[in-house]
Amino acid sequence: MSMPPLASGPEGSDALRPLLATVLDALDAGARSRGGPLPAGGPHTVAAHVREALGDPLPEHGDPDALHTLVRTLAAGAADPAHPLCAAHLHCPPLAVATAADLAVSALNPSLDSWDQAPAASELETLLTQALAAEIYGHPNPAPPTGPTPAPKGPTPTLNDLTAPTTRRRPATVPTPPADALVTTGGTEANHLALLLARETHGPALRLVCGANAHHSLPRAAWLLGLPEPVILPTPTGVLDPATLHHTLTTRPGPHLVAATAGTTDAGLIDPLPALAALCHTHGARLHIDAAYGGGLLFSDRRRSLLTGLEAAHTVTLDLHKLGWQPVAAGLLAVRDPHDLTALHHHADYLNADDDTEAGLPDLLGRSLRTTRRPDALKIAVTLKTLGRSGLGALVDRVCDHARQLADLITAHPGLELHAPPTLSTVLFRPAHATDNAVADIRRRLLIHGHAVLGRARLDGRLWLKTTLLNPHTRPADLTALLRLVEGNTPA
Amino acid sequence: MSMPPLASGPEGSDALRPLLATVLDALDAGARSRGGPLPAGGPHTVAAHVREALGDPLPEHGDPDALHTLVRTLAAGAADPAHPLCAAHLHCPPLAVATAADLAVSALNPSLDSWDQAPAASELETLLTQALAAEIYGHPNPAPPTGPTPAPKGPTPTLNDLTAPTTRRRPATVPTPPADALVTTGGTEANHLALLLARETHGPALRLVCGANAHHSLPRAAWLLGLPEPVILPTPTGVLDPATLHHTLTTRPGPHLVAATAGTTDAGLIDPLPALAALCHTHGARLHIDAAYGGGLLFSDRRRSLLTGLEAAHTVTLDLHKLGWQPVAAGLLAVRDPHDLTALHHHADYLNADDDTEAGLPDLLGRSLRTTRRPDALKIAVTLKTLGRSGLGALVDRVCDHARQLADLITAHPGLELHAPPTLSTVLFRPAHATDNAVADIRRRLLIHGHAVLGRARLDGRLWLKTTLLNPHTRPADLTALLRLVEGNTPA
Repeated sequence: MSMPPLASGPEGSDALRPLLATVLDALDAGARSRGGPLPAGGPHTVAAHVREALGDPLPEHGDPDALHTLVRTLAAGAADPAHPLCAAHLHCPPLAVATAADLAVSALNPSLDSWDQAPAASELETLLTQALAAEIYGHPNPAPPTGPTPAPKGPTPTLNDLTAPTTRRRPATVPTPPADALVTTGGTEANHLALLLARETHGPALRLVCGANAHHSLPRAAWLLGLPEPVILPTPTGVLDPATLHHTLTTRPGPHLVAATAGTTDAGLIDPLPALAALCHTHGARLHIDAAYGGGLLFSDRRRSLLTGLEAAHTVTLDLHKLGWQPVAAGLLAVRDPHDLTALHHHADYLNADDDTEAGLPDLLGRSLRTTRRPDALKIAVTLKTLGRSGLGALVDRVCDHARQLADLITAHPGLELHAPPTLSTVLFRPAHATDNAVADIRRRLLIHGHAVLGRARLDGRLWLKTTLLNPHTRPADLTALLRLVEGNTPA
Repeated sequence: MSMPPLASGPEGSDALRPLLATVLDALDAGARSRGGPLPAGGPHTVAAHVREALGDPLPEHGDPDALHTLVRTLAAGAADPAHPLCAAHLHCPPLAVATAADLAVSALNPSLDSWDQAPAASELETLLTQALAAEIYGHPNPAPPTGPTPAPKGPTPTLNDLTAPTTRRRPATVPTPPADALVTTGGTEANHLALLLARETHGPALRLVCGANAHHSLPRAAWLLGLPEPVILPTPTGVLDPATLHHTLTTRPGPHLVAATAGTTDAGLIDPLPALAALCHTHGARLHIDAAYGGGLLFSDRRRSLLTGLEAAHTVTLDLHKLGWQPVAAGLLAVRDPHDLTALHHHADYLNADDDTEAGLPDLLGRSLRTTRRPDALKIAVTLKTLGRSGLGALVDRVCDHARQLADLITAHPGLELHAPPTLSTVLFRPAHATDNAVADIRRRLLIHGHAVLGRARLDGRLWLKTTLLNPHTRPADLTALLRLVEGNTPA
C-alpha cells in the first residue's frame, strides 16, 4: 500500500488540493439531493441512508471513494444552518472565511498544551483572549502615578460603583492586571469553568443560585463539580427578578454564586444585569453572567448598551459559534480578575517543567481543563480582522432586525400570536387557539417533511414555536415563507 | 459593506473555493519562511512576529488580507508535526484525507446536541462509536436461545473469566447490550468522563487509585469531580506493579477506581493489564484503562495482542489524534456496559422534550457533557473507511518500527544511552555522562534554534530526551539527523 499523504509538511498543500475539491463537490451534491433545509423522511429514513453509505465502519481494506461518499451523505442529511428555513436553535451558519481559517488549524494541528506544539498559535490566543476580555472589562490601566486606581473602563460609567471595591483592594501603585479569557468548547464548558473558579474561591459549600431561565448547563456543572443542590428561582416573566434574588440572598446562608443570563436560550431575554449586580455586591455574592448568546451585542454600536452591567460580573460566558458565525467550537470564559485563574494552575513535567518555565518557555497548561487543545483562536481572529467590529456589528444588527420584522409579520397575521417583541434574534409565536399538542405536532411535521427546522419553548405555561434567526442572508420573503409553512401545517 | 459569504448554502462552495486556495498558499508561504520543524528564535521572537502580524485584534474596519496574513503567520510559527524532526509529544501529523473531511464539518456546522441540528451526523456517530467499542469489547451477542449469556468476544479468550461476572448478572434471556463509546475532546475529557461514570456508580467516596505513570488528567479529574484525594502508587519500573496494587486494594477501604495505562505518556509503556484486571475483579474494584496512546494498536494485527486485558475494563480511553492521525479533537471513551451511560441522562426541554422523544426524535443530550458539539466522528469515519484496518494498522506498525530503528541507532552509538527498548513509538535516550541540566539544555537549545522538537521525561531519577515518533513518512536518514543534532548540541 502506498502511504497516505499528510496534511502539512512539504507535500501537504498538494495533497490537500484535490481532496478539498472532492469535499466541495460532495457538499454540493449532497445539498442538491437534500433540496431543502433538512432531509425529508425523519430519523429512520436518514439513519437508513447513513447506514447504507457507511457500510462496515472499519473494513479490512480501504475505499478511495469514502471521502466523497461520506461527505455527500453528511450534506444530504444535514440541517443546513445557512438555509433560511433552518431557524430553530442557536446553531449559526459559519462564515466562509472562518471555515477556511479553520482548515489551516486542521492541517497544522497545533496543540495548546505546550509552547513547543503551538509557538505562534499560543501567542495568537493570548492576544485574542485579552482583546475580547477588554471588550467586557475595559483595557487595563497602566501603573497610575499616584492616588487610587481608577475603576476599569466599562461601556457605561454608571456601574463604576459596583466594580470599584475590587480595584480598591489593590495597592494604588500596582497596575490593574488585565482581564483575561479562556477558550472553551462552548457555553457549557465556559459555565462549568465559571463554577469551578467560584468553588475554588469560596470552597465546596458554594451554592449556585440561578433563574429557571438559565441554561441547563449551569445546574449540570454544579452536579459535575460536587456542589450543593442549586437554588433555581422561578422566572415567570422570563427574566430573573431582583426582588426574588434579594429574598434568596437574604434568607439563605452563603456563599453564593449568582448566575444571570444575557440572552436566554428560550426567548433571547436579558436579565436586569445592573440591578442583579448591585444585589450581588451588597450581599457579597459572586456573579457570573452567561452571555453565550447575548455577548455578540458587544460588537454592535446600536445594541451594546443592552449589556450594561456585564462588566460587574466576576466571569462572563461568551460563545462566538452563536452571534459570531464561527464553526463549532468557539466558546470563551472572560475572567475579570486573572488571579482567579491560578486555581487552574497545573503541573505535568513533560509539558511545563519548572526549569523550562524559568528558562522562558510559556506555561500553557493552566489555560484549560483540556490537555491537547485545538487553537480555535485562529478562526475567531481571522473573522474579527476580516470583518472588523463594524462588519461583525452589522451582522448582529441584521439578524436582530430580522427578528423585529418577523415579529411585525406575526402581529399583523390574524391567525398567529406573538409571545413578545424580541430583544435579540429569537421570536416565539404560535397559531392562535392551537393546543400545545398541535404546536408540538406542527414543529415535528415540518421536521419530518424536511420543510423547516423550528424550535420550541414552554413559556407562560404554553408551548410556543421558536425561531432563532442567525442567518444574516435571510430575506423578507424567507420570513413570509416560514409563516406560510406554519399556517399550512396548522390544523383547521 | 457587502455581506460576507457563508460556508454552506447555495453559494457556500463558490465562496469557499478561493478562500481555500488562499489558505493553501499561506500555509506554503509560512512553511517556506519557517524552513524547519519550528521557528527559530524562541518564544519572544515568535510572539513579536505574531503581535506585528495581528495588530489590533478587533479593528473598527475589516482587512480583506487577514486570512492570508494570519494563516501565513500561524504556519511560519508552527511546530509542524509533519516535519520528521518534530518528535516530542503525542502530537501527530494529520492525514490529508482526515483534514479534508473536517472541512465539511466546519462548513455545515452540525451540532450533536439535537437531531434537528445533525440528522445524518448523529447517526454516523452512533455507527462509528459502536464499531469502535466493538473493537475493544467484541460484537454484541444476539439474544441467545438458552443457557447463560456467553462472555463478550474479546481479542483473546483468556480473560473471559474476568468479564463473566458482569454478564452473569444479566438474565440469560436478555441479549448483551452492545458496548458503546462517547466522543470526547481527547484523552483528558475521556478520563474525566470515566471518573464521573465511576462516581455515579459507586458514590462520592470513590477513590481513584493509579500509578505515578498515569496521565496527569486522572488526578485532575478527581479534583474536578470533588472526589477524595487519589492514591498515587509509585511505579519505579515505569509500569504499575500488581503486587503494589494488591497491597493497596487489601489495606485501604473502597470503593476504588483503578486506572491503568496502555501507553504511558513518558515512555510508551503498557501496564500489565491482565494481572491488574484480575486483581480488580478479586477486590471488586472498578477498572478504567487509559489507552489514549496505546489504543491505536487495536488496528495492528502484529501488535494488537499487546492490549490483551483491555476488554476487562469498565471504561477505556482512546484518542485518535494520537495513533490515528486525526486533527484535534478525536477522543473517545468506550464503555463496556451502556447502562452506565444513564448517569449522563439529562433533560432540556428545548432539545429533548419527552413528547419529541416519544415521537421518535433521537435524544442525544446524554452522549456528552458538552451541549453544542462538532461531529468529530466524520473525519474519523472517513479515515477508517479510506484506509481500512490494514492501512491504519500499517501506519501504526511503521511508527513502532521507526522507534525500534532509532533505539538500534542509539544502542550502536557510543556517545548515547538508551533508556529501554521501545514498546510503542516512544524512545528515551540521553548523551552518556551528561548531567540532567545538560539534557534539559540540549532540548531547549534545539527548540530555540528551530532545529528540532524533542521532549523530556524523568525516569529512574534521571532526565531523558524523549522522541515520540508519530510520522509514518519519517525516513532512516531523519532518525540519523536527529541523533546528529543531539550530538552536536551536547557539551564536550
